[in-house]
Amino acid sequence: MQCKRSQLFSDHTDNDSDEDFEIDWVVLYDFGDTELHHAIDKYETLIRDIEAFGLETEVRRGHGTALLVLIRVPRNQLGNEVYRSRVKDWLFGIVHSRPLGDSATIVDADTPSEEMRSVFHLVTWTKEQGGAGITANLGQWENVTASFSPHAWIANTELLRKLAAKTVLGVEDLDQIKALFGEKVGFYFAFLQAYSLFLVLPAVLGTLFWIVSTPYSAIFGMTVCLWSIIFVEWWKRREIDLSIRWNVNGVGALKVNRVQYTWEKQEIDPITGEVQKMFPAHKRLLRQVYFIPFAVLASTALGGILVVTFLAEALISDVFGNNLSGFWAVQYLPIILLAVSLPYVTGTLTSIAARLSEHENHRTNDEFELAQVQKAFVLNFITSFLPMILTAYVYVPYGPKLLPHLIPDSWQSHISAKDFRVDAHRLQEEVISLSMAGQVINFGEEFVLPYVKRHLMEAHRRYKDGQEVTTLHQRMHSEYTKALLVDAPQEQSLLARLRAEATAPPYDVQEDTMEMCIQFGYLTMFGVAYPLMPLGFLINNWIELRGDFFKLINECQRPPPIRSDSIGPLVSALEFLTWLGTLSTAALVHMYSGDISQVRLSRLLLTVFLAEQAYLATKLMIHFIFDKIGSEAVRQEEATRRLIRKRYLETFSEELAGTSLPQASHTYLGSRRSAPSTSTQTQQALYPGPEVVEVECVRSEYKSEKGERFWNQRKEVTGTREAGMKLIVALKGVQKSSETSGGNDKRKWI
Amino acid sequence: MQCKRSQLFSDHTDNDSDEDFEIDWVVLYDFGDTELHHAIDKYETLIRDIEAFGLETEVRRGHGTALLVLIRVPRNQLGNEVYRSRVKDWLFGIVHSRPLGDSATIVDADTPSEEMRSVFHLVTWTKEQGGAGITANLGQWENVTASFSPHAWIANTELLRKLAAKTVLGVEDLDQIKALFGEKVGFYFAFLQAYSLFLVLPAVLGTLFWIVSTPYSAIFGMTVCLWSIIFVEWWKRREIDLSIRWNVNGVGALKVNRVQYTWEKQEIDPITGEVQKMFPAHKRLLRQVYFIPFAVLASTALGGILVVTFLAEALISDVFGNNLSGFWAVQYLPIILLAVSLPYVTGTLTSIAARLSEHENHRTNDEFELAQVQKAFVLNFITSFLPMILTAYVYVPYGPKLLPHLIPDSWQSHISAKDFRVDAHRLQEEVISLSMAGQVINFGEEFVLPYVKRHLMEAHRRYKDGQEVTTLHQRMHSEYTKALLVDAPQEQSLLARLRAEATAPPYDVQEDTMEMCIQFGYLTMFGVAYPLMPLGFLINNWIELRGDFFKLINECQRPPPIRSDSIGPLVSALEFLTWLGTLSTAALVHMYSGDISQVRLSRLLLTVFLAEQAYLATKLMIHFIFDKIGSEAVRQEEATRRLIRKRYLETFSEELAGTSLPQASHTYLGSRRSAPSTSTQTQQALYPGPEVVEVECVRSEYKSEKGERFWNQRKEVTGTREAGMKLIVALKGVQKSSETSGGNDKRKWI
Repeated sequence: MQCKRSQLFSDHTDNDSDEDFEIDWVVLYDFGDTELHHAIDKYETLIRDIEAFGLETEVRRGHGTALLVLIRVPRNQLGNEVYRSRVKDWLFGIVHSRPLGDSATIVDADTPSEEMRSVFHLVTWTKEQGGAGITANLGQWENVTASFSPHAWIANTELLRKLAAKTVLGVEDLDQIKALFGEKVGFYFAFLQAYSLFLVLPAVLGTLFWIVSTPYSAIFGMTVCLWSIIFVEWWKRREIDLSIRWNVNGVGALKVNRVQYTWEKQEIDPITGEVQKMFPAHKRLLRQVYFIPFAVLASTALGGILVVTFLAEALISDVFGNNLSGFWAVQYLPIILLAVSLPYVTGTLTSIAARLSEHENHRTNDEFELAQVQKAFVLNFITSFLPMILTAYVYVPYGPKLLPHLIPDSWQSHISAKDFRVDAHRLQEEVISLSMAGQVINFGEEFVLPYVKRHLMEAHRRYKDGQEVTTLHQRMHSEYTKALLVDAPQEQSLLARLRAEATAPPYDVQEDTMEMCIQFGYLTMFGVAYPLMPLGFLINNWIELRGDFFKLINECQRPPPIRSDSIGPLVSALEFLTWLGTLSTAALVHMYSGDISQVRLSRLLLTVFLAEQAYLATKLMIHFIFDKIGSEAVRQEEATRRLIRKRYLETFSEELAGTSLPQASHTYLGSRRSAPSTSTQTQQALYPGPEVVEVECVRSEYKSEKGERFWNQRKEVTGTREAGMKLIVALKGVQKSSETSGGNDKRKWI
Repeated sequence: MQCKRSQLFSDHTDNDSDEDFEIDWVVLYDFGDTELHHAIDKYETLIRDIEAFGLETEVRRGHGTALLVLIRVPRNQLGNEVYRSRVKDWLFGIVHSRPLGDSATIVDADTPSEEMRSVFHLVTWTKEQGGAGITANLGQWENVTASFSPHAWIANTELLRKLAAKTVLGVEDLDQIKALFGEKVGFYFAFLQAYSLFLVLPAVLGTLFWIVSTPYSAIFGMTVCLWSIIFVEWWKRREIDLSIRWNVNGVGALKVNRVQYTWEKQEIDPITGEVQKMFPAHKRLLRQVYFIPFAVLASTALGGILVVTFLAEALISDVFGNNLSGFWAVQYLPIILLAVSLPYVTGTLTSIAARLSEHENHRTNDEFELAQVQKAFVLNFITSFLPMILTAYVYVPYGPKLLPHLIPDSWQSHISAKDFRVDAHRLQEEVISLSMAGQVINFGEEFVLPYVKRHLMEAHRRYKDGQEVTTLHQRMHSEYTKALLVDAPQEQSLLARLRAEATAPPYDVQEDTMEMCIQFGYLTMFGVAYPLMPLGFLINNWIELRGDFFKLINECQRPPPIRSDSIGPLVSALEFLTWLGTLSTAALVHMYSGDISQVRLSRLLLTVFLAEQAYLATKLMIHFIFDKIGSEAVRQEEATRRLIRKRYLETFSEELAGTSLPQASHTYLGSRRSAPSTSTQTQQALYPGPEVVEVECVRSEYKSEKGERFWNQRKEVTGTREAGMKLIVALKGVQKSSETSGGNDKRKWI
């Protein structure tokens, strides 16, 4: 359904040739809060740094007081960077076939994401690491508020159409997502698809149980637990298969240092002679201990709010419910208070978490992300599950005993004894409302709200921009500045899109993964209370997958194509949830399948204890079985590796024997900038056979005339440096004039 | 203390030059139960198969009706096999530096065990795998009752002297053990050493607790549990470090098919083109399901015997104890019955286990061993721990209630009420007697008994041999046969040693590892009952290590130098024992630290449940901390790997650029047959730098004149084939004559 809606960024694009402008990267330079001369200085440094590195630049007006600095990497530099990246992969053991060539070799990227990754490295890596060192929102570059690759529109739309038409994504579809957005995003969609497919079994079973059985069925509970263990163990193996398919197995090994990483001493590796920046592991471990007080703080703060709201709500509805008919609005008071306070508390905790993770001083982004996700999981876990845990294990069983103590004595007289009861069905209601309705609310928050918000902001901005441009036109600008301020007709749609993308939030794949993780937790922990839950989740996920893709291409900045060989640290969270889910399911079945007042604590404990042993044994067995079955992909990978070494050996032997073999070689022909690679191409790269003929790379510097015109036309008149400075002054003038309507001392620039 | 004893095999060796005979392998051909013409036929086939493969043979008389077939691999063939083995290691990714050379390259082995492994492969691998296909006790070769490499006496004695002088074995000592006996044995001694060192902490703490505290101290229990988790996690990492040091990391990947392996179909690998013998994984999995009934059977059979004995003993000592003063011998009845019946039951179960494992049809010996060890662990677990588990969790807490039901009513009148009590200290006594006294008994069974037994057998055999030789001399034999029957003076000590080695049992490293594993289990599960236990184990292990080495070189056949990258499947058993140990310790502390009659089941369950959660959390945290700290060896390994690839890359680049580098090469100089490699040599092999000059291999075919004489003298007179046949007839004649004192129709052979 989403795919038939109008797409914001493509609203403006009527011709399909925007990509021919060959813009590799966009940097948003916002000088709104900066003094004019500072703004100009900083802008000059930015352009100098980029151009000194050999990259081409263009500048255009952005929204408000911002400039869009467009970056293009010369094809030769890019091709060489792609080659270097592949050599690095080989050195770190991620691929096994050696890329042929020397330090000047130029290759074409296999996929857009591979190319974009090289561009990303060239722009953002520090000079030491071999990049221009432009890192958004950090230190010297605090004025650079966004740094991204423009969306590949044609490919995006085509892929969205394809995905919308399919019921189940095949591995080729995942290949294409990965080719456009990188492995990390690819893994998320692979996980979402696999998880949804796995959901079919509990959905069908759950529906059956809902029809023929009562809730809290032991058999259904056991099925869900077994299913969850199998799914997580299967997924761990699936990740390995996919990472082999995508050549990213063990990619964590070559991640570079974070820019924020500080080191205590530099050491020269005695073996490779490389300089290593060291930070003692024990110091980091000590800093990570702060995680414990953080978890306590988070539990206390969030838990406190949730408990208070929960009790207030329970009191009002269960105790006073019948007596409050006059003040019906009162019963919504707790939930409103919660809705107001929770974001503040969560926000504060999240920023504390970020500061803690930063303080832990992780060397790579992967490690930093791990630390962040751990903390985020704690927060999410508390807010998502605590209300249900309270209901299931405290309120329903102990409510009748606890409530009287919580009500002031003066109120007790108002309540008749028979009103005072806690419904044993309350848990089921809570489960339905929190898990099922939660999904709908989530959908609204995730898709509808941002969509509406963005459209409103867009309208406002267009109105304001219109005003400003009019002001600019009215003022005495040189013809040249005017030309800078007004978009050329052929660039209009491109620039409109880039401006929108520049202010859009970057796509956060971890957030979406976390959402699925929490959903999985609902199912394993409380699924037994409501057998229709998996069906609901299945339907939700069918929409979610397409919705997420729509959001990714329409509402978000294109994420940097970061590589990864799994969905990240949340796999451990999934494992944790299977464990907790087993305990919880056992406890719920024990408590709720009969009369709850008859439950004895020792029996309950015994049930949970036995469930835990069953869990450990089952997991071990499933692990064993999966190990015995093994993976075809892993076997092929090993055979390939052996074959490659064998070939090398043969080559060496024959070289030593005096004969010279025609060198096996794999050359990447043609340009496939937006076309995802097919598996045959990957095949060729993997198995360089002598049948692939080496071809001299003949490439035009530009792919299209349009591109050439775009990148060269202004050069004749003036450089990017000067053009930008003129724009800054002009726009600053507008800002000033709309503030004070005076000051034309900067007129000499215009 | 052991090393000052007389050593059997070296009793006969007074000169230190036996190794100069250059015997690589010994095969014992026993024709005792075979008809003469069959015996001769089979012998001919054996020699033909060995000699057809290019190996040299000699034959000597063995004990009784057996021949010692001595095998020598020509140095060139051996050197090439060593090279091929290294290439295979490289192909399978076990080492990262490519061995230079072509199919005819010859290299010297780094260590005796590397050389011996190649000999082992040449002799025992099937013809398909590239060996002579001589597998002892199997199919065609059922008359080959032993197949082993002779001990390297000088090196053994030197090493024993060194180990006896040291308190703690350093990693260089382990290197030397590994160099002589292979990685598998090396890992066992490394484990034993590491475990003993780790024991120092609980030994010291335990002694303190024993002095100042009561048994069942919660703090001591927690310390032991934490210690056990840390030890196992540490050891898993230590294994990786050692396997990197010994270049065996991931060596499981290149293990060849077992001879007993049957396959259902042959497939050609589409990638490497190699023929693969397939047996469906699901079929094997189904067969492995029999493990469950086996475990049930073993538990029932062993458990039944143990329970009956246990109850009988308990009844007699605790109930009738005071009334049986007249029949004091009765109280030993149960233990005697147990001692008689247990070996039979265990033996039967072990043979069932072996047949099951065989039926599971594992492809490699490693997998077969895993299956075997799993089953052996179940048997050992039941026999070792069941009595204590029964005492701790059934007899002491429930004894007073249970016993009256077990005693026939007619007896009850004989017992006064006050006699009838179960002592709460009984567990501690049981723990002391089973774990501590068990170690002493074990020592006796392992070292003293075999030593005495062997010496007695040896004396008997010497007496019998003397008789036979006299008989042989008295009979009409040709001079040549006489020369064959009587050992030449210079060979006497060698042959005496070889005969002894041929009938000695092969060293079983898994058995010794299992013993340590069970000891570890005693400590984690019941250590809290008797804090002096770790001290006792520490002392025991100090002796055990030296005793095991003494046993290995003096009482056992030299084991084939099988490679391995860990102590094997028992690591999982150790992990299992840390888990069970935590639960058990928590339960024991809860039950026994106060008054046992006051214990409530629900509280006990809660304690155990919480202990399990604490265990899981602790393990996760320790895992996390170890991961964060990482391993220096792994880091170096990765750097080395990168460096090697980098060098290749540079070489390739320069080759492509037209210049030719002097080829880096590593050649193994000199012969180090019995001298263990030093770490510098390994270093060189790892980092082939251009500073190592390539040297033409000049090698004499024989290392010593003595060797040349030994292998060539008889050749002038007759071949091994004929000599052996003559010996068979002569010996068979002796057998016959001592049986029937008649029949000289075979005289034509003599």
